Amino acid sequence: MQKKNMVILQSGGPSAAINSSLAGAITRAMASDQIGTIYGAINGLQGFLEQRLISITDQARTTKDLELLASTPSHALGTARYKLPKDKPEVFEKILSILEAYNIGYFFFIGGNDSMDSIARLNVFFREKGLDIKAIGIPKTVDNDLAVTDHSPGFGSAAKFVAISTAETYLDTIVYPIPAVTIIEIMGRNAGWLTASSVLARKTGIKAPHLVYLPEVSFDPDAFVRDVATLVEQEKQIVIAASEGIRLADGSYLAETGAEVDAFGHKTLGGVANTLEAIVKKHITVDKLKTRAIQLNSLQRSAGHIASATDITEAYQCGYRAVEAALQGVTDVMITIQRVSDEPYLTYYAQSSLAGIANVEQKIPLEWITPSGNDVTEEVVRYLAPLIRGEVTEKMVNGLPVFFRFDWAKTVPPSK
Amino acid sequence: MQKKNMVILQSGGPSAAINSSLAGAITRAMASDQIGTIYGAINGLQGFLEQRLISITDQARTTKDLELLASTPSHALGTARYKLPKDKPEVFEKILSILEAYNIGYFFFIGGNDSMDSIARLNVFFREKGLDIKAIGIPKTVDNDLAVTDHSPGFGSAAKFVAISTAETYLDTIVYPIPAVTIIEIMGRNAGWLTASSVLARKTGIKAPHLVYLPEVSFDPDAFVRDVATLVEQEKQIVIAASEGIRLADGSYLAETGAEVDAFGHKTLGGVANTLEAIVKKHITVDKLKTRAIQLNSLQRSAGHIASATDITEAYQCGYRAVEAALQGVTDVMITIQRVSDEPYLTYYAQSSLAGIANVEQKIPLEWITPSGNDVTEEVVRYLAPLIRGEVTEKMVNGLPVFFRFDWAKTVPPSK
Repeated sequence: MQKKNMVILQSGGPSAAINSSLAGAITRAMASDQIGTIYGAINGLQGFLEQRLISITDQARTTKDLELLASTPSHALGTARYKLPKDKPEVFEKILSILEAYNIGYFFFIGGNDSMDSIARLNVFFREKGLDIKAIGIPKTVDNDLAVTDHSPGFGSAAKFVAISTAETYLDTIVYPIPAVTIIEIMGRNAGWLTASSVLARKTGIKAPHLVYLPEVSFDPDAFVRDVATLVEQEKQIVIAASEGIRLADGSYLAETGAEVDAFGHKTLGGVANTLEAIVKKHITVDKLKTRAIQLNSLQRSAGHIASATDITEAYQCGYRAVEAALQGVTDVMITIQRVSDEPYLTYYAQSSLAGIANVEQKIPLEWITPSGNDVTEEVVRYLAPLIRGEVTEKMVNGLPVFFRFDWAKTVPPSK
Repeated sequence: MQKKNMVILQSGGPSAAINSSLAGAITRAMASDQIGTIYGAINGLQGFLEQRLISITDQARTTKDLELLASTPSHALGTARYKLPKDKPEVFEKILSILEAYNIGYFFFIGGNDSMDSIARLNVFFREKGLDIKAIGIPKTVDNDLAVTDHSPGFGSAAKFVAISTAETYLDTIVYPIPAVTIIEIMGRNAGWLTASSVLARKTGIKAPHLVYLPEVSFDPDAFVRDVATLVEQEKQIVIAASEGIRLADGSYLAETGAEVDAFGHKTLGGVANTLEAIVKKHITVDKLKTRAIQLNSLQRSAGHIASATDITEAYQCGYRAVEAALQGVTDVMITIQRVSDEPYLTYYAQSSLAGIANVEQKIPLEWITPSGNDVTEEVVRYLAPLIRGEVTEKMVNGLPVFFRFDWAKTVPPSK
């Protein structure tokens, strides 16, 4: 059988698990005699089009390299905000010329919905051209909004950071004998999975988060003020988990309303937490009330130090199985995780046709959100709980994580 | 020898290690036949004055309880923003009456400068009254601004969170092929230790933080703009660590200048990171420049999930030795940590008279700050490095920390 080379790309936003998928794919590829050189494109499709390819075969040589890679957060190969244009055949031709120059027969893309859309369209192009290039998608998204798969690698680790930060924030907020409202802003523009993960904090025996606001249901400022007032009265200190993407009944993003003005007469900066804080300051007139807005920001997606071992393992398997499938002649699919049961947590890996995957966003089912719209049901907790289990701490030295990094400047020309 | 009871209070802001000091003190007290009941005051001196005392003896009964307590972040007994008034003898009399009612002979206060000031004044009062009450301070501050001790419990764990978050933020920021300036706002109003800890991120092999701004030296906005421009040109993506307390040459806090207006014409909200971001947006005219302001907020002081084992151990020892000293008849001191060497990291515990401790803030020596005022020297790295070592992960179950919590409502009246 003729050897072909392989290229792998990372796309979308950072996550703590995306490099574990890369490590899994590399490991399987190295064990195959069908695959020659393993290339990595720097900065996703944009870098691929600029022919910025490094030789992973040369740069990640040892098992230790791959172990460290698996626990290094963010994109070891970089990413880009680049969308494959629909009406520019010359871009597809350019991709083809690079694939041919590097003698590539295996093409892997680790990413979210946009990435799956790109690779689906590349597959259509490859079929039209009659090219034998196996092109497979490996799921990754901290938002957990990819359809077809039970959940996506990267999500579990982010969920764990959110849950633990919510619990620690609660312990931090209850220590003063004064009423307090703390609002935690969490990622997820359209899907509330990451915000919902804050409820796992309750498994530590605390009541926080006391209120949970998701983008799946519209936000009612009046009900919010009523709920906060009641809870501050009852609990004194409360913690609110709010998705960055919560919207008013008219569909506008709350963070963009700009309707609220803070106590100093300044308009609030963008951001749901600041906006909600301004609403609380304006409408909740409890004596000595302390308010605080906390944005988890990029910390939640890149917190490799508290990654979920379950997530890291599943990410690795998705990468490994993507290469395995390609070697078996499969193409035009995304690897998926299918759940058999919550407890014990049992799953298997499968493949799903790429066509149309990107058209569906997996959101929290409405029946998993309480009628009040400010909390989630026990089903969500059962779904989320297994995904954050286990720690990956063996890569700490002297109190700091050890990272594996590729040399992005060491790009290579096509060989022989 | 007549048995006396003991009371212990927590004060100041939360930290990941303060409960380890509490666990150490309880452990030593339980092993003594001189100490009867161990009481804890809820919400510091304020709660003590309201006679809100719980029986730690009843509530923390097992070794497992104390182990969990040691790794639970924030104040297990609560705190308060309460300063012992100088001119109200009735407050001292009230304290005395409660001490007598509860037959207390041992009084411990875990906290920072304000707490040491309170306990120093209580000791003066006890001496004047001829009372045989041993009253000892146990150091705790994430700011590391307590004098006399080499460093304070609580600081190492916060420093570790800052260092790791800086490293992870850097990995997150370099993945896009666009220039970016990310500003991380770190606690420390007058002392820059926690901000300086961000430089430990460089030990992971990265260049971040590229610029470090501390409250010890005045901030020059013009030099800042020049430095950022040069570094963005050189490095493309840079990370800046900024203390919340940085001040202009005239002594005013940068965060309070309000002089800067963001790209949308809004005045920036308080906060150094937002202010610096506004300066960058206004003065750095690099194409496609992405700016981001990240506030580590309370996350940095309560991040028990990434606590430093060194810090947790030292905190425990300080608590343990405070009780030990009191049992040996010592009073009116704070337990201190004295460093013998950086590598190997060798320390011993000592005692320092409480008088005047609170009058001195331990800041970063000026010779440990580079002449440019935007970085620290290698001495700082050598000083900080040992303090963040080791992880405390054995208390994770199903991916979440296990907390020990006292029942604050179960206050007890004086017994017999």
